[in-house]
Amino acid sequence: MALLVQKFGGTSVGTVERIKAVAERVKKSVDGGHKIVVVVSAMSGETNRLVALANDISDEPLAREMDVLLSTGEQVTIALLCMALSELGQTARSYTGRQAGIRTDDAHTKARITDIDTSSVLADLDKGHVVVLAGFQGFTDAGDITTLGRGGSDTSAVAMAAALKADECQIYTDVDGVYTTDPRVVPNARKMTQITFEEMLEMASLGSKVLQIRAVEFAGKYNVALRVLSSFEDGDGTLITYEEDDRLEQVLISGIAFNRDEAQITVVGVPDTPGIAFQILGPVADGNVEVDMIVQNVSGDNRTDFTFTVNRAEYDKTMKIVQQRANELGAEEVSGNTSIVKLSVVGVGMRSHAGIASKMFETLAHEGINIIMISTSEIKISVVIDEKYLELGVRALHDAFELAGQPQAQI
Amino acid sequence: MALLVQKFGGTSVGTVERIKAVAERVKKSVDGGHKIVVVVSAMSGETNRLVALANDISDEPLAREMDVLLSTGEQVTIALLCMALSELGQTARSYTGRQAGIRTDDAHTKARITDIDTSSVLADLDKGHVVVLAGFQGFTDAGDITTLGRGGSDTSAVAMAAALKADECQIYTDVDGVYTTDPRVVPNARKMTQITFEEMLEMASLGSKVLQIRAVEFAGKYNVALRVLSSFEDGDGTLITYEEDDRLEQVLISGIAFNRDEAQITVVGVPDTPGIAFQILGPVADGNVEVDMIVQNVSGDNRTDFTFTVNRAEYDKTMKIVQQRANELGAEEVSGNTSIVKLSVVGVGMRSHAGIASKMFETLAHEGINIIMISTSEIKISVVIDEKYLELGVRALHDAFELAGQPQAQI
Repeated sequence: MALLVQKFGGTSVGTVERIKAVAERVKKSVDGGHKIVVVVSAMSGETNRLVALANDISDEPLAREMDVLLSTGEQVTIALLCMALSELGQTARSYTGRQAGIRTDDAHTKARITDIDTSSVLADLDKGHVVVLAGFQGFTDAGDITTLGRGGSDTSAVAMAAALKADECQIYTDVDGVYTTDPRVVPNARKMTQITFEEMLEMASLGSKVLQIRAVEFAGKYNVALRVLSSFEDGDGTLITYEEDDRLEQVLISGIAFNRDEAQITVVGVPDTPGIAFQILGPVADGNVEVDMIVQNVSGDNRTDFTFTVNRAEYDKTMKIVQQRANELGAEEVSGNTSIVKLSVVGVGMRSHAGIASKMFETLAHEGINIIMISTSEIKISVVIDEKYLELGVRALHDAFELAGQPQAQI
Repeated sequence: MALLVQKFGGTSVGTVERIKAVAERVKKSVDGGHKIVVVVSAMSGETNRLVALANDISDEPLAREMDVLLSTGEQVTIALLCMALSELGQTARSYTGRQAGIRTDDAHTKARITDIDTSSVLADLDKGHVVVLAGFQGFTDAGDITTLGRGGSDTSAVAMAAALKADECQIYTDVDGVYTTDPRVVPNARKMTQITFEEMLEMASLGSKVLQIRAVEFAGKYNVALRVLSSFEDGDGTLITYEEDDRLEQVLISGIAFNRDEAQITVVGVPDTPGIAFQILGPVADGNVEVDMIVQNVSGDNRTDFTFTVNRAEYDKTMKIVQQRANELGAEEVSGNTSIVKLSVVGVGMRSHAGIASKMFETLAHEGINIIMISTSEIKISVVIDEKYLELGVRALHDAFELAGQPQAQI
């Protein structure tokens, strides 16, 4: 008997019929002898409906009240799924974030989980109930409702799996696994049977929209076995594990990730003094903007150029913050670009292989694609390029690293 | 400075525009120097939408999950109203039933409030915030979400007013006060400026749909000054108070109430032994059916006929329960009638006046209306008649007791 956490997203619970189908799937797992915690999102369209109501009232709705509003979406789904399970003869108990003891900080609309008290959930599992948990939500020490931000249901699922020491956290989505790159861009992209957390983290943060990055971080940190699989088709999906050494065949490069929603901001000619990065990015972080790539090059004349990228939606807000700070710091100018994309080669295998970077740059040069920024980590190399070259670049790299073809052997 | 609880029903918050209008009204009260707790219902149509979702999944949705589902309706409204108040520069804090400390028993979908911990609400009021409370909901000792049943937002408002020792509980509705009878039946029905709790209780329970009966009970019990007034028009509405003696002009009869949704069940020929009423009604109460009129006449031959009325929607369910019990008790037969209505003359004045009953019966006889059942209390006389005579009976009685005409003098 295993303890499984199964997460179903908004599309998977988008209609009454689909909720019934999820109930069937959950029942099958219970009949297979497993204890099940189901984590669900709001029915697809519901969150947008609620956001529209808020926007009809205010251009900048209160964050605390936004959380009160949006958390109702998941609450509707948990009730309906419990009813559907009951129709199949399976007892089930719904849990809001608060009822499930999911405590967070008070960063409304972007809260982070600080603690989970699993006692109630465990008691219900021991009684043979399926536990149906509202994803995306928690509560503060003050008893306020919080939400974890878009995609937060993945985080809820992984966090709950970690707290319960579940055997596996299964993320049901509308794709059947993690691919070497987006199959819409490269039709012969390959589904991976296994990938490491680190690789997945790079893939997720770089725009493979299968899993929310925080969910993968959490899973890696607490060593939760994570599996991505399809709500609509049978199959084993992709298993995301801690140990790269488990693999039978060593893979050099796992995949090509990309992100269309990037925007770049450069502070030109700031004094090259200790603490300058913090002085620029501190106010940005205070504004709750997540910074993605950060690049600062060596400089010669006590001045340096400092570049970073943010989500395109946060560009205007960030630009305002940075321009004010740049004036205070005596920078020469602030420039920006919102028509860029990021494109990355990811793989734990590159740790022990030289020449990956040069092969990447060579491939892009061969296609006539100019590289605007470069940033590297142990297991990925990212470049920023003009957005018009995105598809061309992804396809060229996918070919160059020979990622297409048959799926890996099942492990 | 007064502390006011203002309750707005589903129609009053039915659209974003109306929510904004409620915010304006609340803001006006705050500007008038008052501390305000607003209690709101779900946006009109929302509860029905949620019920339909549940019914698509199950013919008998789990009561616990029904409460989880329905309570989202009010939660949406509190968030939106707080946003709207914020747009007007008025700080506001939303409260779910649980956050407001509204503790109930665990009778899901029909819960009763057992206790309210007002500390958080009082703290926010002291800080100058408007408190916006989700009506209709509470939570159990186990932390489960409960709802108070249809119309429960009135109960929430009165209970909160009692717990806070508010100066007045104002129920904003789509009517501008309490009338001597339904103006749709008797066009010259008169709006009352004042009425006693006891009279209002009889009026409410008998079908004047302005206020939920439990709200009035609560208000009477805790001596909460209750005012019914219009969401859409200015005016003082009708004040419901404890003391009949406050009135300048003594009124004999306050109004004519009626209830279209009655059904009658008669157990014929049951043994006339002590405890027989309990033996019949015990299982009915256990089935969570609310019984309205109960009539048992004197009997001669150790057998008696026992009649009671229930809401028409509960007739089939109740009939099943009663038939089984009647067999066990050796009753001769069980009969029923679902085409009846109840019609009542209500007024504290009748305590000290003989002849009200005979005048009522004479009036109905004069119109050729047959009386099926009679039941009396200190301040009301109710009769059950065939539903086809409802309008005729109400109009005749309204005339006979001279209720039409100018409103009472303002008190």
